[in-house]
Amino acid sequence: MRELHVAGPLSRSELGSRTGLTRSTVRALIGELAAAQLVSEVEPEPLGTPGRPSHLVCPNPLRPVALGLEIAVDSIAGAVVGFGGDVLQSLRVDRPRGELSLDRTVADLAQLAARLDRFDEGSAIGIGAAIAGVVRRADGVVALAPNLGWRDVALSHALRQSLGTMLPIHIGNEADLGALAEARRGAARGASHILFVSGEVGVGGGVIVDGRPLNGIAGFAGEIGHMPLNPAGSACRCGSVGCWETEVGEDALLARAGRVRGGGRDAVASVLRDASSGDERARAALEHVGHWLGYGLAGLVNVLNPELIVLGGLLGRIHARIARTVEQQLDRYALPDARRLVAVVPAMLGENAPLLGAAELAFETFLGEPAAWLKPRPALVALATA
Amino acid sequence: MRELHVAGPLSRSELGSRTGLTRSTVRALIGELAAAQLVSEVEPEPLGTPGRPSHLVCPNPLRPVALGLEIAVDSIAGAVVGFGGDVLQSLRVDRPRGELSLDRTVADLAQLAARLDRFDEGSAIGIGAAIAGVVRRADGVVALAPNLGWRDVALSHALRQSLGTMLPIHIGNEADLGALAEARRGAARGASHILFVSGEVGVGGGVIVDGRPLNGIAGFAGEIGHMPLNPAGSACRCGSVGCWETEVGEDALLARAGRVRGGGRDAVASVLRDASSGDERARAALEHVGHWLGYGLAGLVNVLNPELIVLGGLLGRIHARIARTVEQQLDRYALPDARRLVAVVPAMLGENAPLLGAAELAFETFLGEPAAWLKPRPALVALATA
Repeated sequence: MRELHVAGPLSRSELGSRTGLTRSTVRALIGELAAAQLVSEVEPEPLGTPGRPSHLVCPNPLRPVALGLEIAVDSIAGAVVGFGGDVLQSLRVDRPRGELSLDRTVADLAQLAARLDRFDEGSAIGIGAAIAGVVRRADGVVALAPNLGWRDVALSHALRQSLGTMLPIHIGNEADLGALAEARRGAARGASHILFVSGEVGVGGGVIVDGRPLNGIAGFAGEIGHMPLNPAGSACRCGSVGCWETEVGEDALLARAGRVRGGGRDAVASVLRDASSGDERARAALEHVGHWLGYGLAGLVNVLNPELIVLGGLLGRIHARIARTVEQQLDRYALPDARRLVAVVPAMLGENAPLLGAAELAFETFLGEPAAWLKPRPALVALATA
Repeated sequence: MRELHVAGPLSRSELGSRTGLTRSTVRALIGELAAAQLVSEVEPEPLGTPGRPSHLVCPNPLRPVALGLEIAVDSIAGAVVGFGGDVLQSLRVDRPRGELSLDRTVADLAQLAARLDRFDEGSAIGIGAAIAGVVRRADGVVALAPNLGWRDVALSHALRQSLGTMLPIHIGNEADLGALAEARRGAARGASHILFVSGEVGVGGGVIVDGRPLNGIAGFAGEIGHMPLNPAGSACRCGSVGCWETEVGEDALLARAGRVRGGGRDAVASVLRDASSGDERARAALEHVGHWLGYGLAGLVNVLNPELIVLGGLLGRIHARIARTVEQQLDRYALPDARRLVAVVPAMLGENAPLLGAAELAFETFLGEPAAWLKPRPALVALATA
């Protein structure tokens, strides 16, 4: 199931070689999955050459489906994603920036989810939600979301109430989930050791080790924006000093370029434009970000030995402009053996990466234990007949 | 097999609850393993209470065994470790510090291995070797071992020639393997997310994520001693500037304490003694190391969210003296949620940690696929009858 979800339609023999299972086991499993309407088999076009072409096994994009949700600083979003990764429907609604209560947020999300008519709870495997904050995986509590003003908020519980669902709900950090989406569907497809760095006002990270997200003991891993990097640096909103994000976040870029902080995407775009037309201050600001970005990345390359670094958000949008500086810093500060093996690329999925990653998170349990899903689930059956 | 190797003798019911296997499956598997002489079942003492006590399943400490080897800067060592973790025999031989050729080193190791008469190739699962260097896991090539003067050295191949063996040979970085040993048999037993930091002249690291070593794409992960941390720092022997080890390694401590660099363990011990008797310069040097150690650890706590940090080598020996400073730096620079969950402790296995980790590395393949080991292995059978 994992192979089909990640790679899409595969022949029986490809499935065999990817899983190491024997032909007869693959055939038996496909029979079971087809009976549960999770896959279908398609007879391929004749090849025009001797030999029988292998049947193509296709994931059923309508069963199961997952609901991805996102709580961003200035918008909320939802997407229905099918087995195999097709985005069946998606929706994003802007909200005013700043602190918004939990109650209001989950009510808005429930309203948005109600408009996603391709979401059928009976065919759903679960719900994932991405949030710009520090998330405790075990119970879906948001320990800290500074840009929303949340601390120790039981998001998973509140979502369950508001959506009125029995489905499993998983909460994840937006950078972690962005990393998962880029690894499965975007710039890092096919790679197994990935560092995802996403910067806007805050800088977050997601680390994929051997194809799986690195969560740490409680889901707090990947807070790379708060590595202390500049002992002579300035105060960070986290309470520490000289964190990486004070040198490479949106505010650092805008302030150095002589702009008002908090200007968002438009302000960053104007810095890029001005740098292109020769504005020295805009150029120096971008150079500063590239310098500290490469410096911090070098340390992480030495610690994690990734094959790919994916830059998302603000950092993805300015990548082309700062790439040379970043590469030079890697040359200077990363160990040659690890440095040679790593490439730095911009993210591909844009602002929807965390949303798609949230849906992928919901699929994870299913992919780990698809067999459990072949049996009718009592809670849902009860719900359906009620 | 993994449960028995890591935890030692377990009852059938404990094995069932740890593995999630049914009683009948556990019984069948134990029967198979007992027939292959890999485990034995012991009838426990009567409990004096009603009910039949569960049989105790014991790993056979003599089958399989693994050979651990270590190439340190000033010694070489070997150990025979049995299934279940018993150290059946070990030996360490001092060598002069400095550059020693590959040929000389593997010849010395072969001589040492010949003296380990508890090592029986017919019962052996493999050979692991620890080295203070950057190791490419795939082919056992040492990409860089600065203290030995080695670059791109095919250690695995040379060991095979010198030992004249058909057994699988695995090479690992000494800090990575120290981490593995401390996780399995030492200070981090039972923990699953661990950061191991080992300092002598160089500072190395090993990261355990969810119970498994983090290797990165090519085995270069964990080179934490070369995270750039002090932009105003001094040149590092790796060619970079301001690496962590230039602030917390042995030379940093000795130079700040006014001693000659390269003084080794005795010089460090004298700094500790002098600090205890009030020598200000020795105290300031230890304070400096504690300050930068805690600063670097804080960043890694934010990135990795470990539950335990184990300090080995020099850093373990001075831990009691610098613990307060390290904890203060963590309070200051690590995110509160991740910081609360992490403890810093000294290593337990002392200088033998990498050696025991090397043997554990040799066991890894076996633990992943014990079934393969139940069949006679043609190559070894041929060797035995030759």
